[in-house]
Amino acid sequence: MAWWQVQRGFRKAISEDVNADLAKEREAPPFPLERLTNILDGGSENTRVRRTVEAAIHSDPVFSREDIYFQTAKERYEGAIKRTINLRKKMEQMGWKENGPEHNFIYRIFGGEVAFNVHRVFISSILGLGTDEQIAKWVPLAKNLQIIGTYAQTELGHGTYLRGLETTATFNIDSQEFVLNTPKISATKWWPGDLGRSATHGFVLAQLIIKDKAYGMHAFIVPIRSLKDHSPLPGIVVGDIGPKMAFEHIDNGYLILRDVHVPKENMLSRYSQVLPDGSYVKLGSEKINYFTMIIVRVSMLANEVTPSLVKACIIAIRYSVVRRQSELKPGVPEAQILDYQTQQQKVLSQLAVAYASHFVSAHLGQFYSRVYDEIKMGKFDSLPELHAIAAGLKALLTEYCAAGIEVCRKACGGHGYSLLSGLPSLYTKLAASCTYEGENTVLFLQTARFLIKCFAAAQTHQAIPQSVIYLTSPRANTCQATNKLDFLNPEIYIKAYEHRAYRLIQNAANQLQALVKAGAEQYDAWNRTSVQLVQASMAHCHYIIVKVFVDTLKTLGNDPSIHEAIKTLCDLFALHGIFTNSGDFLHDGYLSGSQLDMATAAYLDLLAVVRKTAVSLTDAFDYTDEQLNSALGSYDGQVYQRLFEWAQKAPANTQVNSAYENYLRPLLQSTPSKL
Amino acid sequence: MAWWQVQRGFRKAISEDVNADLAKEREAPPFPLERLTNILDGGSENTRVRRTVEAAIHSDPVFSREDIYFQTAKERYEGAIKRTINLRKKMEQMGWKENGPEHNFIYRIFGGEVAFNVHRVFISSILGLGTDEQIAKWVPLAKNLQIIGTYAQTELGHGTYLRGLETTATFNIDSQEFVLNTPKISATKWWPGDLGRSATHGFVLAQLIIKDKAYGMHAFIVPIRSLKDHSPLPGIVVGDIGPKMAFEHIDNGYLILRDVHVPKENMLSRYSQVLPDGSYVKLGSEKINYFTMIIVRVSMLANEVTPSLVKACIIAIRYSVVRRQSELKPGVPEAQILDYQTQQQKVLSQLAVAYASHFVSAHLGQFYSRVYDEIKMGKFDSLPELHAIAAGLKALLTEYCAAGIEVCRKACGGHGYSLLSGLPSLYTKLAASCTYEGENTVLFLQTARFLIKCFAAAQTHQAIPQSVIYLTSPRANTCQATNKLDFLNPEIYIKAYEHRAYRLIQNAANQLQALVKAGAEQYDAWNRTSVQLVQASMAHCHYIIVKVFVDTLKTLGNDPSIHEAIKTLCDLFALHGIFTNSGDFLHDGYLSGSQLDMATAAYLDLLAVVRKTAVSLTDAFDYTDEQLNSALGSYDGQVYQRLFEWAQKAPANTQVNSAYENYLRPLLQSTPSKL
Repeated sequence: MAWWQVQRGFRKAISEDVNADLAKEREAPPFPLERLTNILDGGSENTRVRRTVEAAIHSDPVFSREDIYFQTAKERYEGAIKRTINLRKKMEQMGWKENGPEHNFIYRIFGGEVAFNVHRVFISSILGLGTDEQIAKWVPLAKNLQIIGTYAQTELGHGTYLRGLETTATFNIDSQEFVLNTPKISATKWWPGDLGRSATHGFVLAQLIIKDKAYGMHAFIVPIRSLKDHSPLPGIVVGDIGPKMAFEHIDNGYLILRDVHVPKENMLSRYSQVLPDGSYVKLGSEKINYFTMIIVRVSMLANEVTPSLVKACIIAIRYSVVRRQSELKPGVPEAQILDYQTQQQKVLSQLAVAYASHFVSAHLGQFYSRVYDEIKMGKFDSLPELHAIAAGLKALLTEYCAAGIEVCRKACGGHGYSLLSGLPSLYTKLAASCTYEGENTVLFLQTARFLIKCFAAAQTHQAIPQSVIYLTSPRANTCQATNKLDFLNPEIYIKAYEHRAYRLIQNAANQLQALVKAGAEQYDAWNRTSVQLVQASMAHCHYIIVKVFVDTLKTLGNDPSIHEAIKTLCDLFALHGIFTNSGDFLHDGYLSGSQLDMATAAYLDLLAVVRKTAVSLTDAFDYTDEQLNSALGSYDGQVYQRLFEWAQKAPANTQVNSAYENYLRPLLQSTPSKL
Repeated sequence: MAWWQVQRGFRKAISEDVNADLAKEREAPPFPLERLTNILDGGSENTRVRRTVEAAIHSDPVFSREDIYFQTAKERYEGAIKRTINLRKKMEQMGWKENGPEHNFIYRIFGGEVAFNVHRVFISSILGLGTDEQIAKWVPLAKNLQIIGTYAQTELGHGTYLRGLETTATFNIDSQEFVLNTPKISATKWWPGDLGRSATHGFVLAQLIIKDKAYGMHAFIVPIRSLKDHSPLPGIVVGDIGPKMAFEHIDNGYLILRDVHVPKENMLSRYSQVLPDGSYVKLGSEKINYFTMIIVRVSMLANEVTPSLVKACIIAIRYSVVRRQSELKPGVPEAQILDYQTQQQKVLSQLAVAYASHFVSAHLGQFYSRVYDEIKMGKFDSLPELHAIAAGLKALLTEYCAAGIEVCRKACGGHGYSLLSGLPSLYTKLAASCTYEGENTVLFLQTARFLIKCFAAAQTHQAIPQSVIYLTSPRANTCQATNKLDFLNPEIYIKAYEHRAYRLIQNAANQLQALVKAGAEQYDAWNRTSVQLVQASMAHCHYIIVKVFVDTLKTLGNDPSIHEAIKTLCDLFALHGIFTNSGDFLHDGYLSGSQLDMATAAYLDLLAVVRKTAVSLTDAFDYTDEQLNSALGSYDGQVYQRLFEWAQKAPANTQVNSAYENYLRPLLQSTPSKL
């Protein structure tokens, strides 16, 4: 059968026939690949478990995602539910536990294309804020999917600012019920996932009102849809908020409450309670709950944010090896595009960002666990530092990774614009992460508030947390580098990053002080310094990433080839940051112009070094073709065959073209017959 | 009727009821709005004609785009064809000519959501390369849509590098035909618009082969689909390439040719001809054709690129006035988000970019016309300069505008992620412009080649074009500014931009020379300098934009309030550029750290100034609600009502939820009845 005779709907197994250029890159791996894979997985046992789970899932066609690029939102939604329901069966069948090691890989394996993510937030929120009775009543139902929950916080007119929410829950002493209301359109709950078409119950945040007095935000379990026929219950107006930039499979919804009565026991009452007579009782601190917000950020970095950039790098680098374009050297065949310096600068710098993001996410997870252990022993000291780092890293890494995916996508030229490349949807999904779980500018400013406090403490010689300890150390005014090789010395570039962060924090602190001295109110001074505060915050987080990357080098084990390869990426990440933020380092003369030229030369030299190991460095992440779901990025590099074969499945090629009948035929059939 | 009782599919006319915050912004316009609109339109007559055309189109529901966010690709495609066919009728009925002034506004009015764009390229390509007989035969048929054409250049394995194309057209002397072939999969034509489902004929670029000798790329008219029933003709394999990041309404296609015979007269023969005996004749120069590539770039900047960012700014700024979020000042109501400095920095800087892009696009159009007039008189001297500027500005403005849209979109928080905001599709469409009509890095390097040549010429005191004349002028080593107000002096910042461009061009030229001196081959030296060449190219184009913006200030007429408002935007654009590229200005000490601080202070001060006129500055662009097609950006600012009402039309709210029947019901109905 000739290559143009494609069987429709048939995906050819071509992975044994690897593209020659790609095969060549793999001929002599520069380091033991499996060893690096183990390191990236956090141990060989993790690699083993992951592959077991992957094999079980990928071999079962019920979980396939290969058609998602051709599906409508409705099909995507139904597909995600189907996968989730079947996953429950598979887990039971395989003996995987909900909290077992296997579950860690589910997000990776499905690329997030599953349902009921917010349903899980519903469960954890009840576990966090519910009494033992409430937990005993609701959690088993939810775990068995006998009810489907949503977490309803944001409103049409209100986002992260909790106190601004307008939904009310008024206590009625006579009936011992809460009456929930959406007083005006801006109070409509808007965006909650799993609400649009699935949820039967909501974990609803509302302003508690007792005898005309407001008691602030409290949470209520509110039945939304009938368990008999799924129709909205009386007083409920519910639906889907419509199409989004991505997340077609998620039914983000809206919810309006009109005199909706729920029994008194539906208020989540672990930390506050309303007595039958309407008196309000506060029961301890909710500080620990603050913590759930942090864990969501920590885990999204490891599970969604970093892997998205990793996948984009794998796709773009494999494609850049296979793709040949234009004359590099006159008279020889078209060059592999990865041999162009500009292409290297795009995709290899992003590979360094991907590794940096991977290691710093792992580090953040460990820091979280340590603080969690402390908190369980009643020690809350590290919480502000953890909060500041998690907020800032969430903001910086989502910016980096989202922007990096677009760099990779554009580096694949026209084919990167095809959904079949897998790249557009990596971007359109990750773009959301800059907004959800804390809008990035808001988060940077939260980190800045921590930094300004620490700076003030350092000035008065108080103890400050480890991550900002550089605010107390003596500082050199200029960088000590004298040639380009000096910039491959982590001490040199870590000091440069420290210096930059210090200067920008100091600068913002001084500016704040000056404005207040000049008569500005505190809030106004803060606002008028906020652009610079964000700069300071980014510089600090950037420093943290570089520092953690360097520290990670010491933990890689004893294989020198692996150490060398990762050290090169670490250098590349640090120098990429200097190259792209040069003004911050030059500003006060810490780097001179000629030192910056050295750093740039070292940076460009590194690109040619990483070029040689690039394919191995992406292969080591061990993503399967099913996970990449990319015509450009498959292991075998047969990009043109895949693009061609996958395109055959597009509805445009399988459905009748009604536009021809309706509009074109009358025109075309008037053509003179001689043509 | 209460606000939650929405009639499905009904779009309420609420534009008379303007949101109070937005109304307040418009109470005392800072300048005569209509006057600025006329300036932006290029004269009051243009404003008049535009509004006439808008009224005619918007009042006719056959042209509506209000449902596109809910449509499948198939519906989008059919809708675009429907609009295009009806537009032909409307034009006839209104007496608008194809080349008349009315036609200039069609792209704006439809937001590009029409069909047969590449069909028009088919026509202009025949006009460019066809003989008089070929033009007389094909063009009238195409203009009457009796045939539908596509322009088939790029192949699966080959993009902009023309010489790399693999499709062949072999001359058969016996039959006096050309036989076209796709020798292997990478030669499959891929991406041509209007090819996937519509085209009947292709303008196909192929390697001409006569008696086993290759003569390079030539163009052939190839029938693709039957004019009787639209089925592929013998030897043709044709279809759609599948889903893309946007452009759902365009049927980008693929084409495989297997021994397809076309008569000898189907080779476009204005500049070269094959005689019956197989001898090949070259007929004059094709230099003028080179020119069509330039006009496409020039007009895309004015018609697609700039307007996309303008629309994003209008949407984001109106929303930022309406949206209230968090406490700015303690104890007072939530603040309008446009009052936050960080928000101003995002959206107002982009407004400055939008104006800069608007003015430089207009300037480029004028430059093009001038060169075109010269060329008609046989004078080709300015062509390299025009080519270099058009290439570089295409690259830089598509980067700026695409990135700027994302800044605006993210500045709208969660709602900016809804397709109903209009913002995601502005981005996903414009993102393509970084790749099509010349991949941006390739274009930057073309401009760099021109700059390096000019630099060498300047060194040897040869004449060089006006746009790079700064390469010959004496230069100061440091900026003369002594306080922040100096940075509102265009002379100060123009000199800084000149200096930066000069330094980066010089730097790249020196580096090239040094590498060659050290023994590198020319091509290798070029490749190893290419990251820096791109930097130099960007700096030069950035300078051009600043220079043109300043020059434009002199042409604004005699209204001081308009002059002031636009001057402020010009300053903002220039200082935004310094703020975001500070390293380039600090590198050799042209700006000192303290001068940069002054520039930053001036920049941040400007934000607060532009804040006051921002709504008027966006209103002046005079985009209709239909053109914006945004729930967040409508003139009346009723954002929550629109989001709510538009969401009702989503298929998720109008179709049965089959996932409930198939998957959820069995689970939910097992719930204990007491719930």
